[in-house]
Amino acid sequence: MNKKYVYLFSEGNGKMRELLGGKGANLAEMTRLGLPVPQGFTVTTEACTLYYEDGERINDEIEKQIFEAIEKLEQITGKRFGDPRSPMLVSVRSGARVSMPGMMDTVLNLGINDDVANSLSELTNNPRFVYDSYRRFIQMFSDVVLGLPKNSFENEITKLKEKRGITYDSELSTEDMKLLVVRFKEIYFELTNSSFPSDPKVQLIEAVKAVFSSWNTPRAISYRRMNDIPSWWGTAVNVQTMVFGNMGDNSGTGVAFSRDPATGENKLYGEFLMNAQGEDVVAGIRTPMPIESLKDVCLSAYEEFSALARKLELHFKDMQDMEFTIENGKLYMLQTRNGKRTAQSALKIAVDMVSESLLTKEEALLKIDPRQLDSLLHARFDEKDLKQAAVVGTGLAASPGAACGRVVFTADKAVEEAKNGPTLLVRNETSPEDIEGMAVVQGILTSTGGRTSHAAVVARGMGVCCVAGCSDIRINEEQGYLTVGNNRVNEGDYMSIDGNTGNVYIGKIKMVAAAISGDFATVMSWADAVRTMKVRANADTPKDAEAALNFGAEGIGLTRTEHMFFQAERIFAVRQMILSQTSEQRQKALDKLLPMQRGDFEGIYRVMRERPVTIRLLDPPLHEFLPNDEGEIRKLASEMGVDYEKLHDTVDSLHEINPMMGHRGCRLSVTYPEITKMQTRAIIEAAINVNREMGINIVPEIMIPLTCDPKELATVRDIVVSTADEIIAESGLKLHYEVGTMIETPRAAVLADEVAAHSDFFSFGTNDLTQMTFGFSRDDAGKFIPSYISSNIFEKDPFERLDSDGVGKLVRYACESSRKVKPKLSLGICGEHGGDPSSIEFLNSVGLDYVSCSPYRVPIARLAAAQAVIKQKS
Amino acid sequence: MNKKYVYLFSEGNGKMRELLGGKGANLAEMTRLGLPVPQGFTVTTEACTLYYEDGERINDEIEKQIFEAIEKLEQITGKRFGDPRSPMLVSVRSGARVSMPGMMDTVLNLGINDDVANSLSELTNNPRFVYDSYRRFIQMFSDVVLGLPKNSFENEITKLKEKRGITYDSELSTEDMKLLVVRFKEIYFELTNSSFPSDPKVQLIEAVKAVFSSWNTPRAISYRRMNDIPSWWGTAVNVQTMVFGNMGDNSGTGVAFSRDPATGENKLYGEFLMNAQGEDVVAGIRTPMPIESLKDVCLSAYEEFSALARKLELHFKDMQDMEFTIENGKLYMLQTRNGKRTAQSALKIAVDMVSESLLTKEEALLKIDPRQLDSLLHARFDEKDLKQAAVVGTGLAASPGAACGRVVFTADKAVEEAKNGPTLLVRNETSPEDIEGMAVVQGILTSTGGRTSHAAVVARGMGVCCVAGCSDIRINEEQGYLTVGNNRVNEGDYMSIDGNTGNVYIGKIKMVAAAISGDFATVMSWADAVRTMKVRANADTPKDAEAALNFGAEGIGLTRTEHMFFQAERIFAVRQMILSQTSEQRQKALDKLLPMQRGDFEGIYRVMRERPVTIRLLDPPLHEFLPNDEGEIRKLASEMGVDYEKLHDTVDSLHEINPMMGHRGCRLSVTYPEITKMQTRAIIEAAINVNREMGINIVPEIMIPLTCDPKELATVRDIVVSTADEIIAESGLKLHYEVGTMIETPRAAVLADEVAAHSDFFSFGTNDLTQMTFGFSRDDAGKFIPSYISSNIFEKDPFERLDSDGVGKLVRYACESSRKVKPKLSLGICGEHGGDPSSIEFLNSVGLDYVSCSPYRVPIARLAAAQAVIKQKS
Repeated sequence: MNKKYVYLFSEGNGKMRELLGGKGANLAEMTRLGLPVPQGFTVTTEACTLYYEDGERINDEIEKQIFEAIEKLEQITGKRFGDPRSPMLVSVRSGARVSMPGMMDTVLNLGINDDVANSLSELTNNPRFVYDSYRRFIQMFSDVVLGLPKNSFENEITKLKEKRGITYDSELSTEDMKLLVVRFKEIYFELTNSSFPSDPKVQLIEAVKAVFSSWNTPRAISYRRMNDIPSWWGTAVNVQTMVFGNMGDNSGTGVAFSRDPATGENKLYGEFLMNAQGEDVVAGIRTPMPIESLKDVCLSAYEEFSALARKLELHFKDMQDMEFTIENGKLYMLQTRNGKRTAQSALKIAVDMVSESLLTKEEALLKIDPRQLDSLLHARFDEKDLKQAAVVGTGLAASPGAACGRVVFTADKAVEEAKNGPTLLVRNETSPEDIEGMAVVQGILTSTGGRTSHAAVVARGMGVCCVAGCSDIRINEEQGYLTVGNNRVNEGDYMSIDGNTGNVYIGKIKMVAAAISGDFATVMSWADAVRTMKVRANADTPKDAEAALNFGAEGIGLTRTEHMFFQAERIFAVRQMILSQTSEQRQKALDKLLPMQRGDFEGIYRVMRERPVTIRLLDPPLHEFLPNDEGEIRKLASEMGVDYEKLHDTVDSLHEINPMMGHRGCRLSVTYPEITKMQTRAIIEAAINVNREMGINIVPEIMIPLTCDPKELATVRDIVVSTADEIIAESGLKLHYEVGTMIETPRAAVLADEVAAHSDFFSFGTNDLTQMTFGFSRDDAGKFIPSYISSNIFEKDPFERLDSDGVGKLVRYACESSRKVKPKLSLGICGEHGGDPSSIEFLNSVGLDYVSCSPYRVPIARLAAAQAVIKQKS
Repeated sequence: MNKKYVYLFSEGNGKMRELLGGKGANLAEMTRLGLPVPQGFTVTTEACTLYYEDGERINDEIEKQIFEAIEKLEQITGKRFGDPRSPMLVSVRSGARVSMPGMMDTVLNLGINDDVANSLSELTNNPRFVYDSYRRFIQMFSDVVLGLPKNSFENEITKLKEKRGITYDSELSTEDMKLLVVRFKEIYFELTNSSFPSDPKVQLIEAVKAVFSSWNTPRAISYRRMNDIPSWWGTAVNVQTMVFGNMGDNSGTGVAFSRDPATGENKLYGEFLMNAQGEDVVAGIRTPMPIESLKDVCLSAYEEFSALARKLELHFKDMQDMEFTIENGKLYMLQTRNGKRTAQSALKIAVDMVSESLLTKEEALLKIDPRQLDSLLHARFDEKDLKQAAVVGTGLAASPGAACGRVVFTADKAVEEAKNGPTLLVRNETSPEDIEGMAVVQGILTSTGGRTSHAAVVARGMGVCCVAGCSDIRINEEQGYLTVGNNRVNEGDYMSIDGNTGNVYIGKIKMVAAAISGDFATVMSWADAVRTMKVRANADTPKDAEAALNFGAEGIGLTRTEHMFFQAERIFAVRQMILSQTSEQRQKALDKLLPMQRGDFEGIYRVMRERPVTIRLLDPPLHEFLPNDEGEIRKLASEMGVDYEKLHDTVDSLHEINPMMGHRGCRLSVTYPEITKMQTRAIIEAAINVNREMGINIVPEIMIPLTCDPKELATVRDIVVSTADEIIAESGLKLHYEVGTMIETPRAAVLADEVAAHSDFFSFGTNDLTQMTFGFSRDDAGKFIPSYISSNIFEKDPFERLDSDGVGKLVRYACESSRKVKPKLSLGICGEHGGDPSSIEFLNSVGLDYVSCSPYRVPIARLAAAQAVIKQKS
């Protein structure tokens, strides 16, 4: 038997997400549950894969199965595809495994042609609706399937309206619509040199192809990249019989969530429009009515919808995002999916559903995307400062949080300006083309559109603060300013917006850091109870350490000692040290640095008390501390009282061709042991001092960077241990300390068992390990990694998500081989992957004891570590 | 029972080399064979290791065993240590597993003091000899054991000779010698603030310590590094009862080889001096007599020595290097070891010993150090040019080969100048301090010393051409010139020397390439019959390819296509290609390059015919082809007719922080597929053309560099295959070609099985693999690798010898895992390790099909590959 590429909704179920896509599986599931779903079928994701394998061609078998499904649909509906007497119209939509809003394309009203339109006008007795649908179909087909410029058609409507002296599309008459259909077909011919296809079968196959092709548009690829969706998944195509929300005042269409996606409140949340097709609601052109008002307009539909929403939520055990259409008073469910929500909402829904006994705690934990928490971990407005700020406008609180930044009017500009500081994107409304710009700004402000408009949906997904539909604003993009009331704001001026209230302000408002409380704290406590990996933070200052503690860090996994060297008053001593000609000179400079470093460590110890603190010895190449250009070198020469030429030569001699693989890390300890001795002294003396002062028992962890060889580590460890033991002996106190190493060269990973012999702990430096394993300089790979992603070679930048295939194989090998010889060896990670949820899942699977990440990612890591445990169980 | 740290010669044997060192094992073996050896004992290498473990201290157990051995020696000799009535004197010498000439220190005449000297004068009736020995002992002990300045003592002798108005040491009277002893002891006290030790036991223990310590002198470390000797071996100490060659005219001492170490001729070769101690011969101060003359001076000793030499050679199955002493007419053997020899001699001895049935071919192959062959593979004088050159002086032909270079007078200068071109080191005589300079020059010329002088021995070991003892030369080092006859040669002028004839010339003589013939060819044919790995060469031009064939290469393992881009007439088109703003511009530039590249490949194919040729696609980052400084960029801008500023910006934008890990290798194919298409076209069209032209069947191997991912390779392979197949189809001919990749990133090694799926062959690029596995930039690591070697972290620079522990582990893993999925996958190496004998041994063990190296290393690789097979068998 041939493989099945097409499933009627009645043949599938909700678990067939991989094959049917999320939308298709849910349509099947709703059908199975007996919900009022317009019937249809799904072309599988496997057909999509085959389409690409066949060189972007739909093969005969798939085509055959599609037309067989059409025949079955005809039997179910009693209508016939292309038959004027009883015509069946369909919608064609994409549907990947996970929802990709705005990314994939849709064609409605497919199956219409002149004959069908003609007879349908008689059948419905509503020719204006029919020809409106017809011209929309031609527009959508031309745009989506053939990629013809939208303007060509829109201009025609504008011209006609001008000619008629009218403002709105709704004022166009039936005859106008007919005229547009004729004119649109002419334009189609002009642009393509072929007639608009009147055969519904041709229309259908072309539309299916277009959906498959849209899987690989740059926009879709970009969305996948941002959302960790593998390109090999492919998309399914859903073909569904049309129902019409635009058949008159007894018809309508809407979108609603089973709970509030912004706050999580347990009540229906959404919008509808009567006498409209679905696109009108989402597109944000007409301002829709809140879902509660449906009670007043069509109570039976409201009540049925409310009941179905609850039924679906119970069934899917998750908040639902639903589309419905009312055709002549009858409710149809067009789609349901787990709803996107703000982090705040996700937390509340999780906590509520657990108290409603809808979910277990573990199930609830899995419902929250750890990356989303980021939005809760950033600043909000300072209350005091906020009280003094005047509200100049108000819009919909579309995505929570607060934002303050310089105003830009285009996404491109946003991308540019965001490099220089906080930025606010202000637009009439956003569109999928704006995604990259939306991702980099602090906040988004739109003048039109509702809570389900593009701007609102995307901003919530990204955790970016958004105020939508603020009609007080008038934007003059061309001249680069906006007005709000009587105020004028130029592009580049500061504005502030509050995504929790919808308030808009001119100028800056002070921001304060976030705290973990309420539902967030509850969820974090569940996560902490589940996870087995500890979470530490990377922190170089007492302030960082405090922030880390505040977010629940259980220790410091990485203190970079070199960061302390860059401070203005210290850099001079550092440069003296580097440029010393003799060991004695160097020692003199180091003697100056010692009390400073010791003070740094004391500050951190005081905050962390007895929690583990891992301090890494000097890592970067020495030339990083030196000036580069002539002026600065001259200045330094005169400060140091040395000859410019000589200093210039010394600086030159320290230059490196490939500094990443140069004279840095523990190589500095081998060549300049006196630096290592100074740092060890600072670490140990600081611990002794703070132990004395606070009566506590600090156990410093001294970390040796960039080890590539067991003997190398033994040599450097010797320097550290002999220095430390001497100081401890002199102090007359007891102090336990540990000496470990980073595993960040492939050789250290490959020889991990031998390296372990000289190490009390390992911390994987996956930034450098990724650089060396791939042979990618992080500073330079930006020039080609985007090509690798757009060519589908990489799913994701390996510096963002740990490459579990390659780098991960080395990490796993290092863990297993070292634990074999030293079962209690402590294993952690301090590369940036330590804060990335999918990397954390991998790291949990290899058995790390802890991850360490930036303070602001600690809660994300706590949740991700818990999810990893739960996922690994199943 | 306690561990045995001290062995009498009679307790050991020749196989105990690891424990007793080479010298100790051979003294034991000679004792076992019944040869006349002055008896003694050996302190083991394990004692040396313990000495370092104990913080450079000889522990009580070892000391106890030493004195027990002394007692046994006293029983054997009937003399007693420190007993004036019948005093026993001993020599103390180092003896590592392998001979390290000039590197380790010796103390003679140990056991003497005032009482002993006094009674010994009576016993021998030769007080001058006794006090001469005594003052020598004080000098040696002060120098070797305590490191006191030699001059302090030498000056005293000079002063005394001036006072006496005499020229030679031999003119000093007995009383003078006594005076010197007194004065030397005073000097010793002045310098050390303690009395010269008169207790022989104290003398002995201090001397043993000094030998152990000398294992870690910079000189010894440097020698080990150059000769691949691990530092953990340690040295043994040999304590041997003294016999005296300086007891009068019936005594003497000499050094001789059982065959000629320069030519391999089967006859005794060496020198002796009557009434002298061993050091006098080696030091090159008195000019010794050739060994044949011993017949005339002391026939019985000569005959006995000849017979013993033959006996030892038969026993050890190798040419012997022996030291002997005649004491009052009686012959004593002091040492034997396998003799160092020139490459030419090694080949002749190997071939001769096989025809003498002394060795099997396989045994003979193992006797030749492959690295030595290098000296035979370089140029000799052009015969015609040589005929026209006038000989200005003649010395001893101490190390064969010819050399022509600029004259320098110090080793330091040599190190400096050798960077700029061929260099000749000219000195009165060389000393161990000069080793680094001797290693980098083309030739060495000395004015004094014989064939066993330091210069001669070391030069032969290094395969550097040497003419020794050319007394025609007068060097004025201070004023920077030399005279030879009436000619003056300034430092920096050219001279030429012939190490085969001893002839010295002023000016340049043309050199011609070496060829493989005679014994060399015989040995190579044996090696070829034994080895299983093929040997290819890295060659970028038809000329290189010819040289490679000449040396026996069986194919080309690496043709670097970028080398073809640097030629003056091409670089402009290359730069146009790089700086193109559009694909079309780039294509235009590529169209210009295509015929040039095609021509390059045709040339190489014509030489190699049907032998495999692996061509690597463009590898370096594009900025390597661009000018850097302002002037050059301006010039290029005007040549290209573009704006300077714009060009400067483009050049800037291509700059990379870590170019080694930047936009290069197959990353260029991903971003600029048109370059890959052009190169593929050139490779395939050239093969088609040459196949047509010569009626042969070339199978080009296209190699993709720097792969880090299986999908990446699949993508680039697709570009290559689709281009190639189209061209082949158009040509209407059949052409088989292969597409493979380099394995040079750790990730490619780790994912080798998946990479293999898209590859017909692998070639390990161990240069880059070493860089990335260690995280060492080869361009920068020179700043710290020497510290790693001097700190004993590395035995050897990993860029010279493949790091079998780390990099090798990745190579082995890649081989095993890829062969598992593709058993016939061809595996090779084209990094520089492919020409390094010990790396080749490793590569043979992991099962590579071939190694590829520079043409001049091909014969070395052939021999090393054969040795690897033989060693692996046993």
